[in-house]
Amino acid sequence: MATKIIEFEKPKLKNPIFIEGLPGVGNVGRIAAGYIVEELGAKKFAELHSSHFMPFVLLHQSSAVHVLKNEFYYWKAKKKGQRDVIILIGDSQSIDPEGHYEICEEVLKYVSSMGVKDMITLAGLSIGEAPKKPKVIGAVSDPSLVKKYSGVGIDFDAGSRVGTIVGASGLLVGMGKYYDVRGICLLGETVGFPIIPDPKSAEELIRVLTKILSVKIDVSRLDKKVKEMEEFIKKVQNIERQTMAQLTKGTPIGKGEENEKLTYIG
Amino acid sequence: MATKIIEFEKPKLKNPIFIEGLPGVGNVGRIAAGYIVEELGAKKFAELHSSHFMPFVLLHQSSAVHVLKNEFYYWKAKKKGQRDVIILIGDSQSIDPEGHYEICEEVLKYVSSMGVKDMITLAGLSIGEAPKKPKVIGAVSDPSLVKKYSGVGIDFDAGSRVGTIVGASGLLVGMGKYYDVRGICLLGETVGFPIIPDPKSAEELIRVLTKILSVKIDVSRLDKKVKEMEEFIKKVQNIERQTMAQLTKGTPIGKGEENEKLTYIG
Amino acid sequence: MATKIIEFEKPKLKNPIFIEGLPGVGNVGRIAAGYIVEELGAKKFAELHSSHFMPFVLLHQSSAVHVLKNEFYYWKAKKKGQRDVIILIGDSQSIDPEGHYEICEEVLKYVSSMGVKDMITLAGLSIGEAPKKPKVIGAVSDPSLVKKYSGVGIDFDAGSRVGTIVGASGLLVGMGKYYDVRGICLLGETVGFPIIPDPKSAEELIRVLTKILSVKIDVSRLDKKVKEMEEFIKKVQNIERQTMAQLTKGTPIGKGEENEKLTYIG
Amino acid sequence: MATKIIEFEKPKLKNPIFIEGLPGVGNVGRIAAGYIVEELGAKKFAELHSSHFMPFVLLHQSSAVHVLKNEFYYWKAKKKGQRDVIILIGDSQSIDPEGHYEICEEVLKYVSSMGVKDMITLAGLSIGEAPKKPKVIGAVSDPSLVKKYSGVGIDFDAGSRVGTIVGASGLLVGMGKYYDVRGICLLGETVGFPIIPDPKSAEELIRVLTKILSVKIDVSRLDKKVKEMEEFIKKVQNIERQTMAQLTKGTPIGKGEENEKLTYIG
Repeated sequence: MATKIIEFEKPKLKNPIFIEGLPGVGNVGRIAAGYIVEELGAKKFAELHSSHFMPFVLLHQSSAVHVLKNEFYYWKAKKKGQRDVIILIGDSQSIDPEGHYEICEEVLKYVSSMGVKDMITLAGLSIGEAPKKPKVIGAVSDPSLVKKYSGVGIDFDAGSRVGTIVGASGLLVGMGKYYDVRGICLLGETVGFPIIPDPKSAEELIRVLTKILSVKIDVSRLDKKVKEMEEFIKKVQNIERQTMAQLTKGTPIGKGEENEKLTYIG
Repeated sequence: MATKIIEFEKPKLKNPIFIEGLPGVGNVGRIAAGYIVEELGAKKFAELHSSHFMPFVLLHQSSAVHVLKNEFYYWKAKKKGQRDVIILIGDSQSIDPEGHYEICEEVLKYVSSMGVKDMITLAGLSIGEAPKKPKVIGAVSDPSLVKKYSGVGIDFDAGSRVGTIVGASGLLVGMGKYYDVRGICLLGETVGFPIIPDPKSAEELIRVLTKILSVKIDVSRLDKKVKEMEEFIKKVQNIERQTMAQLTKGTPIGKGEENEKLTYIG
Repeated sequence: MATKIIEFEKPKLKNPIFIEGLPGVGNVGRIAAGYIVEELGAKKFAELHSSHFMPFVLLHQSSAVHVLKNEFYYWKAKKKGQRDVIILIGDSQSIDPEGHYEICEEVLKYVSSMGVKDMITLAGLSIGEAPKKPKVIGAVSDPSLVKKYSGVGIDFDAGSRVGTIVGASGLLVGMGKYYDVRGICLLGETVGFPIIPDPKSAEELIRVLTKILSVKIDVSRLDKKVKEMEEFIKKVQNIERQTMAQLTKGTPIGKGEENEKLTYIG
Repeated sequence: MATKIIEFEKPKLKNPIFIEGLPGVGNVGRIAAGYIVEELGAKKFAELHSSHFMPFVLLHQSSAVHVLKNEFYYWKAKKKGQRDVIILIGDSQSIDPEGHYEICEEVLKYVSSMGVKDMITLAGLSIGEAPKKPKVIGAVSDPSLVKKYSGVGIDFDAGSRVGTIVGASGLLVGMGKYYDVRGICLLGETVGFPIIPDPKSAEELIRVLTKILSVKIDVSRLDKKVKEMEEFIKKVQNIERQTMAQLTKGTPIGKGEENEKLTYIG
């Protein structure tokens, strides 16, 4: 089935800026983007499904199943100095190399068809120790953008400190210019344990982002929200690793040792 | 070759309900669906083939080869209160993540083209110990369906007990709503040893299913049938694991240590 | 690039029978089919290339490179009782599960477009010990074919002795009926060491085949021919295993320990 | 997204010869081709992107991201005896078997659409020890080309010394004839450590190449250039291996032990 975008509404947006925050190291980008969606009251208008996600569904408390997806939200500028915004959040990134390219291409085609020329992607930068005050590092699609994004608290020492950006946050910015979408990847310093969400790093991303977007966002509820998201995020990632192992070995996963809920069902 | 459906007959069905039972943990869904096909005398009308199945054929006692496939059967309502039924059973599920999505999409497209709006998928839920009386847990595509399917012996505590449903049974229910097909996944509690079929758990699924379908099915022959199926099911799964290992390592499988019949032939 | 067939000549054939012999256990099928091509003086008319083969070229003594391929040959009946023949031989089978299906489908489409209705595939059956006089076991696409192919020295006890046939020889016979091509897979008993070619088993296949085709083939040169083929076949398979390991691990192969010639070149 | 070529300029070339030098053992081909691009002042006119490359971007000192790509350059003949040249260099080759075929096919289609009939591919031949004076070994698409390329210092003993050529350099020459592009693969002897670039071997390739192309290239700056390239090349290959491991295991890479800059960012 490859990758497809299902559109529920066709919002009319004026020169929208595109923001991406999908799961990754410390889930920093996912947390920051998800919090902004909630605080702005952004509205979902499309979903992206892909056969490059894990082949399972999650279960909600209501006994309803949840198929893995990425979701597009929009928010319209309320006052002068603000811009319309499209935000992409989601449960998962591609589980294979090829899928990363395919998904990024579909996303870029879609948002550029909606008039997007600017993009901000959000990710974590694992530094191996818990930073006291996490810095936000910027990586740009064009050297000229360093100037454009100066003065909002971004460190532009990525070139000397960062080797690569793996996955959607990097590829979107790297491939964007071929779709006439330019932008910046904001990397929040984090200790780098893959599953544990890092709200402190996400908070720094939000601080920078609100300056760029000229919006006000109260970060006081962030810790509470992260707690709520944490269980869901952990569940997805735990199962992804287990299912991956199972699919590779060809042996179904039995009852999880550590987690009774992570049961394989065939 | 991807996935394709070969149709032998185009049955005219009225508002049919779709039931899926493919191999999985304890083969609970496969056994239940296969038994219903036999007992109802359902008729095969189409086959699904896929390059996401293992690249081998099985041999029947007659020396005839058997290519891995999923099979669609139909049964027409005999009296008031009953509905036409489409049942999908088969030898195998996809051996790679991408194939699960592809196969489910093809199945959903096909059955919705035949007028399917409701679906019941059958699977096992491994609980790590042999249940005295296996419960049937329900997971729904819509929270509103919990009410619709109450009163037939389904426990709706999936939300708190089940993390994920891997493979077709979950994905069909999860993706179904995008094809306007809504439904429920029935999970029969089972100990969770992958290859050993669990007729007791399958029996509970059948009990629930007959209530939903308003049909009568005598479960007294189930044990005998499971014995007959057992050897075939074991063979497929044993070889799948062996072949997978061989294809991954690039070394042909020699004579199986445990099973003289499971010989690699190139 | 997937799989494609390059046609050099469009032979006009009358009700041709299709014979397949690709590499496998003991290379029994490959040797038998290759020898028949030579002895009959069959003419090459098409090649099959596939991105499911290993991504390397072999080098001939002339310093010319050799891209991995399967080759179609034809031979026209010389006298009454004989039939036109299409023979498929080659360097390699698919290295991934999906490719087996794709390649078999392309082959079946192609030969059925040339009027093929009957097919004989050739393979080895590893039995774990060197057979004194290798038997030829038959597996058929239809139980009714057992009778058709009786009386030429084929044992039809495959159903009780053989679990599966992995790869092209099995899939072609299994999928053939969906293309209106019916046939038999002839399995020559062999010890089952993957790389060492087994001319004795191949000889038995040839014996059976010449009876079916009503042709005379002198098997006295077989040992000599196998010696000539042996080095080439070993080279391909050794390198396939090495390259597979390299591609999987992401580490280029250095100088082969056992074989100076099997050098990786990037 | 598969593989696509993005064209910036459509150069008008007269009977151009095509030269390929992508990363591989000792990066010999990549270094030689890259140096020639610089020394000739060849001009970039197209890029090849592929979902068969690793799904990450690299970071330049300027904080600008760099998406992995192959690049096409052209150079126009300046005087009699010279020919127009197309050169392909790049950051990466395919990371999976299938991608090698796909990329080579796209390259061959593209250059043959520009009138290319002749091709020279450049690679390293690992010999397990540091050669005093690296020889240049030739492997040809046609035995008749041995004569054409004699007298410029190429050893044509590839047939007895070389088993296979893995990747683009081999496949291009092997598949080329099906696109009416014939040519030679020049293999520079090198010790064969995968990541360490070997400028001495590259120098020998350049020497042979300049004779074939009738151009003058000063190799005195080669060592310096290799030093400059070395860090970038190492970075790509180190990360490729790490990311591959991560993507296969499903565990994000933490802080690199040996290299602080090779940090995973999700």
